[in-house]
Amino acid sequence: MPSEAAMKAAMQAYFDHFNAGDVEAVVALFAADATVEDPVGSTPHVGADAIRAAFAGVLKNRPHLTLSAPPRGSHGNAAAMALEAKVGDLTIRAIDVLTFDEAGKITSLKAYFGPEDVLKG
Amino acid sequence: MPSEAAMKAAMQAYFDHFNAGDVEAVVALFAADATVEDPVGSTPHVGADAIRAAFAGVLKNRPHLTLSAPPRGSHGNAAAMALEAKVGDLTIRAIDVLTFDEAGKITSLKAYFGPEDVLKG
Repeated sequence: MPSEAAMKAAMQAYFDHFNAGDVEAVVALFAADATVEDPVGSTPHVGADAIRAAFAGVLKNRPHLTLSAPPRGSHGNAAAMALEAKVGDLTIRAIDVLTFDEAGKITSLKAYFGPEDVLKG
Repeated sequence: MPSEAAMKAAMQAYFDHFNAGDVEAVVALFAADATVEDPVGSTPHVGADAIRAAFAGVLKNRPHLTLSAPPRGSHGNAAAMALEAKVGDLTIRAIDVLTFDEAGKITSLKAYFGPEDVLKG
């Protein structure tokens, strides 16, 4: 099981690479067979190629993430963070829940936000 | 699928009953076969009786919850909230992820916090 510190470091790296618009650096944080469900309730992207395509589409618009509160770990292989994503004139309030493998790679990311969590401004 | 508003109302009710120390009102928000994993990585409490016993133990100490950010919905039957729980001289930073049935009852609650998220003061 990865340490709490390792999981939080991976979340910080995700944050930094996402905000830099660096698709390859984001994808490199994920395990080869990882899944990304963003938002929860949509069809997950499965595997590095699908995840790369998804992030390439998202990061094209250069969204900017800010943390809403300090990230949380767990007593297992999971961690979570509340954040806001600014995309153009929209703000999306989300909570991301991530799981990790032994090597500290992200095995799943689920982004919780609903239609009401997408705000103008 | 419950509406985003219904899920957020159930989370608010959970919050209110928890802070009032009302075990039965908290338990009444859960489906009969619900699961509570608090923290994530521990053995889940399964079913209303186990959940009642767990909350009776927790609420005896009259912890107080405050939201760290507005709750998030999803495009499915799930919602999430970042919160802090004050218990005696400890503050626990957590993210709770909940799922719901058609009737708006909570079917699962997972609380994400690790040892590093438990702070003095």
